[in-house]
Amino acid sequence: MKHILSLVFIFVISLSAFAQKTIQGFTEESAKAEIALEEKFDSYLKASNLDQWMKKLTARPHHLGSKMGKEYAEWMRDQFRSWGYDAEVETYKVLFPTPKVRVLEMVAPSKYTAKLVEPALKEDATSGQAKEQLPTYHGFSADGDVTGELVFVGYGVPSDYEELDKLGIDVKGKIVIAKYGGSWRGIKPKVAQEKGAIGCIIYSDPEDDGYYQGDVYPKGPYRPALGAQRGSVLDLPVRPGDPLTPNIGATEEAKRIERAQADNLIKIPVIPIGYEDATPLLKALGGPLAPEYMRGALPLTYHVGPGPVKVHLNLQFDWKLVDCHNVIAKMKGSELPDEWVMRGNHHDAWVNGAADPISGMVALMEEARAVAELTKTGWKPKRTIIYAGWDGEEPGLIGSTEWAEHHAKELQQKLVAYINSDGNGRGFLYAQGSHTLQQMVSDVARDVTDPQTGVSVLERRKSAMAAYTSSAKAKKEIINSSSMTIDALGSGSDYSPFIQHLGIPALNIGFGGEDGGGEYHSIYDSYDMYKRFKDGTFEYGVTLAKTAGRTTLRLANSNILPFDFKGFYNTVNGYVKEVTTLTDNMRESTEVENQMIRENRYKLASDPKDTFIQPKANEPVPYLNFSNLLNAMASLEKSANTYAELVKMNPNPNTNLARLNKLLYTAEQKLTIADGLPRRPWFQHSIYAPGYYTGYGVKTLPGVREAIEQRNWKEAQEQIEILASNLTKYSSQIDEAASILKMR
Amino acid sequence: MKHILSLVFIFVISLSAFAQKTIQGFTEESAKAEIALEEKFDSYLKASNLDQWMKKLTARPHHLGSKMGKEYAEWMRDQFRSWGYDAEVETYKVLFPTPKVRVLEMVAPSKYTAKLVEPALKEDATSGQAKEQLPTYHGFSADGDVTGELVFVGYGVPSDYEELDKLGIDVKGKIVIAKYGGSWRGIKPKVAQEKGAIGCIIYSDPEDDGYYQGDVYPKGPYRPALGAQRGSVLDLPVRPGDPLTPNIGATEEAKRIERAQADNLIKIPVIPIGYEDATPLLKALGGPLAPEYMRGALPLTYHVGPGPVKVHLNLQFDWKLVDCHNVIAKMKGSELPDEWVMRGNHHDAWVNGAADPISGMVALMEEARAVAELTKTGWKPKRTIIYAGWDGEEPGLIGSTEWAEHHAKELQQKLVAYINSDGNGRGFLYAQGSHTLQQMVSDVARDVTDPQTGVSVLERRKSAMAAYTSSAKAKKEIINSSSMTIDALGSGSDYSPFIQHLGIPALNIGFGGEDGGGEYHSIYDSYDMYKRFKDGTFEYGVTLAKTAGRTTLRLANSNILPFDFKGFYNTVNGYVKEVTTLTDNMRESTEVENQMIRENRYKLASDPKDTFIQPKANEPVPYLNFSNLLNAMASLEKSANTYAELVKMNPNPNTNLARLNKLLYTAEQKLTIADGLPRRPWFQHSIYAPGYYTGYGVKTLPGVREAIEQRNWKEAQEQIEILASNLTKYSSQIDEAASILKMR
Repeated sequence: MKHILSLVFIFVISLSAFAQKTIQGFTEESAKAEIALEEKFDSYLKASNLDQWMKKLTARPHHLGSKMGKEYAEWMRDQFRSWGYDAEVETYKVLFPTPKVRVLEMVAPSKYTAKLVEPALKEDATSGQAKEQLPTYHGFSADGDVTGELVFVGYGVPSDYEELDKLGIDVKGKIVIAKYGGSWRGIKPKVAQEKGAIGCIIYSDPEDDGYYQGDVYPKGPYRPALGAQRGSVLDLPVRPGDPLTPNIGATEEAKRIERAQADNLIKIPVIPIGYEDATPLLKALGGPLAPEYMRGALPLTYHVGPGPVKVHLNLQFDWKLVDCHNVIAKMKGSELPDEWVMRGNHHDAWVNGAADPISGMVALMEEARAVAELTKTGWKPKRTIIYAGWDGEEPGLIGSTEWAEHHAKELQQKLVAYINSDGNGRGFLYAQGSHTLQQMVSDVARDVTDPQTGVSVLERRKSAMAAYTSSAKAKKEIINSSSMTIDALGSGSDYSPFIQHLGIPALNIGFGGEDGGGEYHSIYDSYDMYKRFKDGTFEYGVTLAKTAGRTTLRLANSNILPFDFKGFYNTVNGYVKEVTTLTDNMRESTEVENQMIRENRYKLASDPKDTFIQPKANEPVPYLNFSNLLNAMASLEKSANTYAELVKMNPNPNTNLARLNKLLYTAEQKLTIADGLPRRPWFQHSIYAPGYYTGYGVKTLPGVREAIEQRNWKEAQEQIEILASNLTKYSSQIDEAASILKMR
Repeated sequence: MKHILSLVFIFVISLSAFAQKTIQGFTEESAKAEIALEEKFDSYLKASNLDQWMKKLTARPHHLGSKMGKEYAEWMRDQFRSWGYDAEVETYKVLFPTPKVRVLEMVAPSKYTAKLVEPALKEDATSGQAKEQLPTYHGFSADGDVTGELVFVGYGVPSDYEELDKLGIDVKGKIVIAKYGGSWRGIKPKVAQEKGAIGCIIYSDPEDDGYYQGDVYPKGPYRPALGAQRGSVLDLPVRPGDPLTPNIGATEEAKRIERAQADNLIKIPVIPIGYEDATPLLKALGGPLAPEYMRGALPLTYHVGPGPVKVHLNLQFDWKLVDCHNVIAKMKGSELPDEWVMRGNHHDAWVNGAADPISGMVALMEEARAVAELTKTGWKPKRTIIYAGWDGEEPGLIGSTEWAEHHAKELQQKLVAYINSDGNGRGFLYAQGSHTLQQMVSDVARDVTDPQTGVSVLERRKSAMAAYTSSAKAKKEIINSSSMTIDALGSGSDYSPFIQHLGIPALNIGFGGEDGGGEYHSIYDSYDMYKRFKDGTFEYGVTLAKTAGRTTLRLANSNILPFDFKGFYNTVNGYVKEVTTLTDNMRESTEVENQMIRENRYKLASDPKDTFIQPKANEPVPYLNFSNLLNAMASLEKSANTYAELVKMNPNPNTNLARLNKLLYTAEQKLTIADGLPRRPWFQHSIYAPGYYTGYGVKTLPGVREAIEQRNWKEAQEQIEILASNLTKYSSQIDEAASILKMR
């Protein structure tokens, strides 16, 4: 241990030599005050609070609609109030089905009835609370009582069905079984339904989060044989939130649509199971050998079927409206009360939810407590700070979406940025979000120390990124850069309504990478598990509070908001290059594939003893007209450079900062599309969206990229024009901001 | 079936349009005669002969030194004689240890005694011949009775030990357990011994050839739970052949060295086991989690140890000399009896050996029978044709090596080329060998029809190569080329003494890719298995006879031997580019890795809760002087082009063809190094060798490449000069050949 510390010490010294303490958005003077404030803030943070609060908030199951969910929300509200916040519980009425009947059985070639129960463990104190636990099920599965032959579809994403097509396997009228992983779970029943399947089973293969990855619970943190991953299968890439109140807040009196009219409900029954329940089904499957990439770590030969396995699946739900309790705590800004900075984390869990979401929730609370503590020293934030604890995130980002839809107009006027966290673990900083905020995140990461190694979380992240990159060139670039890149936002947590529906700049941050396990959405995501295998000392909970707290404080206190349009330009320019290269590559590969098909090459490469259906040729890829987009990017580059030059200088005392700042934080709204993306109008951002067929995974420039990927050339051209037009409007707003800075 | 045939028909028509029937080495006229001859040859080939002979030759176990091995050799000799060959059994006396004691047991933390027996199956008629079967063991394992803690080392190749070093795991004084695969088996105990291990266990993980790959025997062809892979662990990359008679034939009276003096014997005990015997050991292992890439498909969490598992391994052998019976059958050339073309396949097996080697042996016999049949029509080969059935291939290419060493001088004078085959299966043509023969192999492949699809084996191979390549550019290149590339020869079958020791042009050919299974070197490699899961109709056996037969006939009949020096130049030029790029890439990566290490990056990227030992920095990579090599390549290009231009024209009737041909087929000897490669003088070829640390896997430009890989810069420079000098001598010989063609 000593040896390690001394090595680290040398390293810290050498790094501090080139650390610069400039902070974007602050003058040299105000930066000094800000740094002093942040150091004081750090000194208030106590790991023991996180531990104590997690123990309380995970003591019993607290899903959406539960008694404990309400109690915990009210307790949190009271905590915020006790620290001086103006805190309320805002309640919505939302659809939340829970199971009445769950039957899964193999009826041929032999009989097996799935257990569908995660056993309690004596090593886990809360695992036996069966009466309050939601059983293993998928939120928003359809009701259904179906019997059919079984087909194994790998991860069950579109490319898997292309492979099955080649084997001559059709899932029409069949029940599919898919592995968890490879995409967000909701994609699996969605694609299965599109392909004509009548039911869907999703199991956790031990390769992905079971014994293949590490020792299983309680010996290690990985998923045991009957551990099953609950989760929502609401069609999130179409629309999150309450299915019955699209685009409006689900208040008591809101006008609701019929369930049959909802655009984000799956129509087939779907259920999650553990691999102990999956094994007899997979073992008895016949038909062709599954392609190698589809197989998992079970001790059997993976066949795809269909049959001889026949499965009976009967799922019936109670489709009731329940109360969804968001906790909203405000601290009014002293100078700019109508400019808001918002931090959020959800509080509802599938079961006890220690890692997901309480680890993040308690870090947010401690951050809020320390910010309140600062006000006792006489400091007040310039802008209003709002802390939120969302309910109903698990079934489909429901609490945050309803709140954002309900307050949409005001938020688009006032909200500077939304900073999200969710479950938090041990390891490395990750950050995703609007690329105008990338430089600010880098600055924050530079200023927060990693608790295990003593270097900054920036340097630790860079080290990990470099270590896990194989290219020498990429390694060099990473370690020689003084900043970090942030990823784009897809979906999967409460930032979605803010950035993707309202066009409000957003971030999602947290720590992880050294807290692997298989407890996700199971009864084993408990306080006992968290203490033993996750961030048991809560030092990364405190580090998250430091990181998110700095982000919040800097946004709340800055003179000129730290938006970096050059960084944004560079990133988007990379995306534009990707989509142009994508079409060029598709053109070349389509030509070659068509020749392969014409010359019967794939058939000749296949084993004549097996069925092989040669894929169909595609129409040649046309040349798209990217000129408007490229011209818009050229303008954006110019606008971003001009603004960056001007903002470097101290502003004229007469500068209209209020006007300037509003232009800055509302600029991202120029990137929204009023009618939304094709086939999913709720998603309005033209730069970032979850993939229609990937779920959580982001698609950047989604309208353009997905049209190209789907070979819809007409739509691709339309989306190019929309994107170009949005980027032009965005540039104009930056120009307007620059013109304010120019007035002297 | 009809549908497929009609598709194929259309395709054949379209291909025949661009098929050209020129044959390298023949005039237009003589090519016509050759084609007619080959068609007649084809018409003699009978699949039923292969079936009948395989049934006979696999009826009982016939390993080196066995009663049946001798009987079968004599029967084959008699067959050759009956067809008109001058056939003999040439016998050597060679070292061949067989087990007296085999004990493997876990002694802690609990007791388990490994079964070490493959069970007989009622579905497999020969699997119960326990009395005659060699037990599961490794040929040339050391004697040893050791007890030690167990360490799991993945595939047990050098890079695995680098990973273990990072985890702080040392195998000194320990027993290692490695998975089969990732390299030739003999590398595993060799590296383990270098690292200080006292024993080695190699098991067949089901991921590699068991249930993960397909249904296990007898349901499917994959390896069952107790199936174990016998095999040699003689240090083949140092020297194959009888350990006691390096460089000379192991005749009765040969002078033998002491066993302790042999340079190719491993010094630790090593044993192969099935995964049923491996599971209790791996399950009980503690220590760090194995890196993900090391894990397999057993239903357990792979840990590396060491301990708490302790293992006792006791292996004792009978180190006896046995008779090694090569069958040699000659047909004298009518015009050039002192120019020989040789075809060979081994006949010894580890047990019954239907796939390995009898499938290839019976194809060779049928080829020889049909060639003999041709002589009844009045035709005689210009050059002498020799067919060989080698003994002792399995324990270490012993029969072929002793014969080649014994007849070395004559072979270097007379042998034009050696064409090898080994086990043969269903699917696609593969070919490896001297690149001067690449174009000839392409021409042959163009002229042989694939029995399952009706296209040429060339087009079928191209289709498979293209289908399994992901790059559109590479696909395009493959399908638009009218020829195929052949791979370089490493080791693993009887071509090794010819090409790598004597510098004689060689080829290794066969069919496979649709005959996967896990019977390799087990009692389940039987006639029953072959009929059900391999080339059960023997149509690919006949296709091998057609392919190898054409190769033999063209070499035997050509006016000017079909050596293509331009093709050779192009391939070697690719290798030269690889080694220069390799040093450049190593220079860049070493610089970055050293920075990563200096800045403690890997340590910072690792989990502080785990042991992580940062690797050591390497010295910077110097610039090597490649100028002599590049100049030699420039000369070679010129010489090859000049020769190619001249040989295109019909030769002057006065051309000294005998002198010309001898220059052509002895040119490859100019590429040999009299003192051999560093640390392995038996290997003399400067272009092709098995990798010192890969075994079967080839290293091209081995002296240069391995010195660079091992960062031995002084040796790399020396080897560059040797290679340059060899290539210069080679060019001179081509120039000499060209000058003969120039005489008019």
